[in-house]
Amino acid sequence: MTDNRQITLAKRPEGSVDESCFAEKQAAVPAPAPSEALGKVEWLSIDPTIRMWMAMDTYLPAIEIGAPIRSAGLVRVVESENPKLPVGTLVFSTPGWQEYSIVSERDQVVPEGVDPTAALSIFGITGITAYYGLLDIGRPQEGDTVVVSGAAGSTGSIVGQIAKIKGCRVIGIAGTDEKCAWLTDELGFDAAINYRADNVGKALRDHCPNGIDIYFDNVGGDILEMAIANLALHGRIVMCGAISQYNDDAPTAGPRNLSALISKRGRIEGFIVLDYLKRSGEAIQDLATWLMEGRLTYKVDVMDGLDSAPEALMKLFSGSNTGKMIVRP
Amino acid sequence: MTDNRQITLAKRPEGSVDESCFAEKQAAVPAPAPSEALGKVEWLSIDPTIRMWMAMDTYLPAIEIGAPIRSAGLVRVVESENPKLPVGTLVFSTPGWQEYSIVSERDQVVPEGVDPTAALSIFGITGITAYYGLLDIGRPQEGDTVVVSGAAGSTGSIVGQIAKIKGCRVIGIAGTDEKCAWLTDELGFDAAINYRADNVGKALRDHCPNGIDIYFDNVGGDILEMAIANLALHGRIVMCGAISQYNDDAPTAGPRNLSALISKRGRIEGFIVLDYLKRSGEAIQDLATWLMEGRLTYKVDVMDGLDSAPEALMKLFSGSNTGKMIVRP
Repeated sequence: MTDNRQITLAKRPEGSVDESCFAEKQAAVPAPAPSEALGKVEWLSIDPTIRMWMAMDTYLPAIEIGAPIRSAGLVRVVESENPKLPVGTLVFSTPGWQEYSIVSERDQVVPEGVDPTAALSIFGITGITAYYGLLDIGRPQEGDTVVVSGAAGSTGSIVGQIAKIKGCRVIGIAGTDEKCAWLTDELGFDAAINYRADNVGKALRDHCPNGIDIYFDNVGGDILEMAIANLALHGRIVMCGAISQYNDDAPTAGPRNLSALISKRGRIEGFIVLDYLKRSGEAIQDLATWLMEGRLTYKVDVMDGLDSAPEALMKLFSGSNTGKMIVRP
Repeated sequence: MTDNRQITLAKRPEGSVDESCFAEKQAAVPAPAPSEALGKVEWLSIDPTIRMWMAMDTYLPAIEIGAPIRSAGLVRVVESENPKLPVGTLVFSTPGWQEYSIVSERDQVVPEGVDPTAALSIFGITGITAYYGLLDIGRPQEGDTVVVSGAAGSTGSIVGQIAKIKGCRVIGIAGTDEKCAWLTDELGFDAAINYRADNVGKALRDHCPNGIDIYFDNVGGDILEMAIANLALHGRIVMCGAISQYNDDAPTAGPRNLSALISKRGRIEGFIVLDYLKRSGEAIQDLATWLMEGRLTYKVDVMDGLDSAPEALMKLFSGSNTGKMIVRP
């Protein structure tokens, strides 16, 4: 059998992730133990959290130097020691950046008929993050004003559409006019702010005259401070990510107006989608229904070849992707 | 009738509150309208929030220049146009820093037999703040580790004792060894940290090996950042006050580690006791029971004379009070 090509962690990133963080390695193709199966990695999910796993221990231990970059993805069974995982089965697991990986019964089988890109985005971590982050942490009420940053990203674009389905006014923040046009013209957002071109503070005041009821934060930094300044009474901030800060060497100053949460009776709450995976069925049912009804749409940005994975990750931080970033090894 | 002496707002504070912010004025004693009563101000509640009211619009409009300093307090009816407010009745209202004020049926009568200092502290804003802030926002579970800053202050000292009653481990942060000794020796706190003498970060790590489940924040600033750094998974931060920042001219940098709330699934939530006043009966019932059972104690720091009100307010910011600051005009 062929060798197993891997992209491994060469060194921990300092500042921006660049090519020097990665190395290529040829490893042996692993042999499945009894009850396991061997799979060929067909799709890799490229997520901002990978930058954190490369740098340090967080909610998961840091990736070890020399180990394949940790990454969720879809794996096709090519050799099996487990009758529940027959050859040909597509499985959702965390294979990492390599060509072959072991799968087990603990991994989730992707039902036939489900498009792999949908399995990785709207029915995967992305969709479940958007669903529970908005509904469970943000608790939208009909008529609420919802602001989403990273709105043209994989999670943000789903968050905004769910908020519309729930009867909210939705304002997205993104980094190009094309992304903003996509949000308002195709996804039905009520307004979009280009943070590179517009005065975000003024735009938030203009678009949210009664304040922001829910701010779904994918970016942190200055925009978080502006959202706090414009928070409505009893406003909620869902802390999903802080992509503007992941590449910072030194810790960045936090929002100077945090104590405004007192007068505003405001709440900031962080969450990790792993806590919600046991409830993913409920989310997937709603998401599938909305998808079938044409009320929800998603976009993927697919790059071909395992070699393209580092570039795909870097695209997330330069903001040059639209929608879910996926690599097909 | 005698003139009504007032202490009014001379100018808005910039940086620390000092004597130049205040002026003395002789005003006419107000005449009660039909259904109102005239009261002599017997006790004034001196609270950090007065500094905010002096400076700017917050959850209430700023005090106007030339108007008496806004302040809660107890007023004894001396002349009445309302049979429900007979002469001699003690009423909880917001008389401000003056000798006489008008009271109405909307104000709350203090039942006979309730000590006025108790009415202003444990059964007043202070006790209700501590009760709902800890129980409703913090939601303590038995065995939780609770950290309180401003722990020897009026609210903090009650918060810590309620947390003990609820079966939590309680660590207080205060500014002198005497205050720390009071917390551990008399109030039953499990440990106390002197933030002026100890390394607070290290002390928190030592005293909270499994992290902080609830941080009740009265001070903001650096200690808030250290609490976030030591927050347990699913930890809650109750934002009650930010006294370390009220005297700052420029907005202070927020906690640099705020995005740690994501990995920790943490929550920061602000609240204002005004929202809970309609539920004060429930709080007072529990607080009175615990007081009678000897499980709850409170301390007041009383200064005599209306003239002492500015100094009493400044004492809050220098941390030289212990317990509830009260002025008897």
